[in-house]
Amino acid sequence: MSNAVNAKETASARGEGMDAALDALMKVVGPDLVRVNETIMARMTSSVGLIPQLAGYIIAAGGKRLRPLLTLAAARLCGYDGDRHPKLAACVEFIHTATLLHDDVVDESMLRRGRDSANAVWGNKASVLVGDFLFARSFELMVEDGALKIMGILSNATSVIAEGEVLQLVTANDTSTTEDAYMAVIRAKTAQLFAAACQVGAVVAERPEVEEQALFDYGMNLGIAFQLVDDYLDYSAKQQELGKTVGDDFMDGKITLPVILAYARGTDEEKAFLRRCLEDQDMPDYEADLAHAMELMKRYDTLSETVVRARAFGDKARAALAPFPDSEAKSALLGIVDFCIDRVY
Amino acid sequence: MSNAVNAKETASARGEGMDAALDALMKVVGPDLVRVNETIMARMTSSVGLIPQLAGYIIAAGGKRLRPLLTLAAARLCGYDGDRHPKLAACVEFIHTATLLHDDVVDESMLRRGRDSANAVWGNKASVLVGDFLFARSFELMVEDGALKIMGILSNATSVIAEGEVLQLVTANDTSTTEDAYMAVIRAKTAQLFAAACQVGAVVAERPEVEEQALFDYGMNLGIAFQLVDDYLDYSAKQQELGKTVGDDFMDGKITLPVILAYARGTDEEKAFLRRCLEDQDMPDYEADLAHAMELMKRYDTLSETVVRARAFGDKARAALAPFPDSEAKSALLGIVDFCIDRVY
Repeated sequence: MSNAVNAKETASARGEGMDAALDALMKVVGPDLVRVNETIMARMTSSVGLIPQLAGYIIAAGGKRLRPLLTLAAARLCGYDGDRHPKLAACVEFIHTATLLHDDVVDESMLRRGRDSANAVWGNKASVLVGDFLFARSFELMVEDGALKIMGILSNATSVIAEGEVLQLVTANDTSTTEDAYMAVIRAKTAQLFAAACQVGAVVAERPEVEEQALFDYGMNLGIAFQLVDDYLDYSAKQQELGKTVGDDFMDGKITLPVILAYARGTDEEKAFLRRCLEDQDMPDYEADLAHAMELMKRYDTLSETVVRARAFGDKARAALAPFPDSEAKSALLGIVDFCIDRVY
Repeated sequence: MSNAVNAKETASARGEGMDAALDALMKVVGPDLVRVNETIMARMTSSVGLIPQLAGYIIAAGGKRLRPLLTLAAARLCGYDGDRHPKLAACVEFIHTATLLHDDVVDESMLRRGRDSANAVWGNKASVLVGDFLFARSFELMVEDGALKIMGILSNATSVIAEGEVLQLVTANDTSTTEDAYMAVIRAKTAQLFAAACQVGAVVAERPEVEEQALFDYGMNLGIAFQLVDDYLDYSAKQQELGKTVGDDFMDGKITLPVILAYARGTDEEKAFLRRCLEDQDMPDYEADLAHAMELMKRYDTLSETVVRARAFGDKARAALAPFPDSEAKSALLGIVDFCIDRVY
């Protein structure tokens, strides 16, 4: 597949109503994204054929390239006119892809972006090892780039992601999980890489600390909003359009905000029901149990409240960009906020 | 546990007859090793309690600390008198520990160093994620150290290890695996980190290229010898003394040198037998099949030949140190070669 086509597909394979945001983004970073894709293709190669085969399967699977796009747009926002940012954006995407591969092993997911997950096709073993390869390759690329500060940001993000995933594992099946614990999980497992991806854009442009911090904050709040929307979508009919199954989190006993709020607001009887499903994983009639759980979420407005909170974090992300004067890049980054939240429609 | 005690245990918990080599080594790097263990304990911490718990379980499990010892001794051999080498040695051990955690997931091993493996205790998910954490933490430590060249060496070693593990996966259950393919696997999955660990000692001491290369070659040949001995030991009665099961590789269908040679030398009937066991994994009477396979290895002398080849690589490792004048550190590194090979007794 040609990378130009690939970049175009990335731009077009989205839902309706978000085209404007994406067009604005592509206008700013389109050619850079082509270079990111070229770097990804060139650097996931290995003499061991299974590695590019498996890595290519997941990387080409129609991912949104959201995180590398953030690095590209942030660099442009900071007026960067060098050529290091596509390689750094590729590092970010390699880290993200590695975590996806390991996530699917951890979740025992059989689907990813609407097709068989890599571990469903090649098995857990290969997914673990190719994930390791991509982590390592990402650091090799950073070493080539040579900026210690960026290596520090991205290696720290990688360890924070792992901490967040372990924390998620620890809170799974535990209906007493607090909102704070949930927020700690999504900050670490999702938002930290968004924040790091944006911060890297400021660092590569050698911008002052205040702009770095502003882009970090933008990414952090955007990432939180993104994950809240994801956790909402898991219980939404929209999920099926995205090629995913409704209620995967419920089946896995993942304790996300819609569930935490429903548990907090439910009667003793409803709490007992949620404990049976999520803690004991005792669901003799899974479809009926999922339907009842979703009824509770509707009754207590927990799904819409999850979206409301996502919007609030989206507002914080927008506000974080205040230090920057208006520009096409700024419009593009503001548009990404809409794009992430409008996935609910 | 105090780190001083821990270092002492590391020195004493070995088989018989190797005490002299280890005493020599400890004389050279004993205090440095205490600092490595302190760094490991201090830097595997996390606010997520399961991480130090699981990482500590595997790190404290009586590992030989062989790879960090190589970094320490190589630095001393190069006359290094600074204080960076214990932290770099800890990086090497973190990378090794991460690969062990992922290996056990990949192999579905229930035992590691004679006790339950981490994945047997905490599950595959936690093992994958804590392995990721340790990889990331290792790079964070390297960034703190600040030497780009060392980051390049260790990130490259990490991706080569992953390639070797994938190659091993691809050759598993394939009795047509060549000796060359087998050698490529063990160079990548085992020897590359030995080589990198040694090379780092020369780099931190800012020694010329020829000494760097000499230490790399020493480590590479030592690592090959080490893995050959490991693959021999899998079929040796000695294995049980080490708290491992005889024939694990056979059960997993791993194609190691003792099997490759037996297959090459066997009759058609014997080849068919090995294919049934290793390719088809069709072993209705496993104990009898393993016994018959070991009979073939004895008949064709493949186990002793594996040791002979290990010795030859051990000789190459020793020869690689020729550029260095005699010193306590050199004696210690020569002693490690004996230690690695004498594990067969």
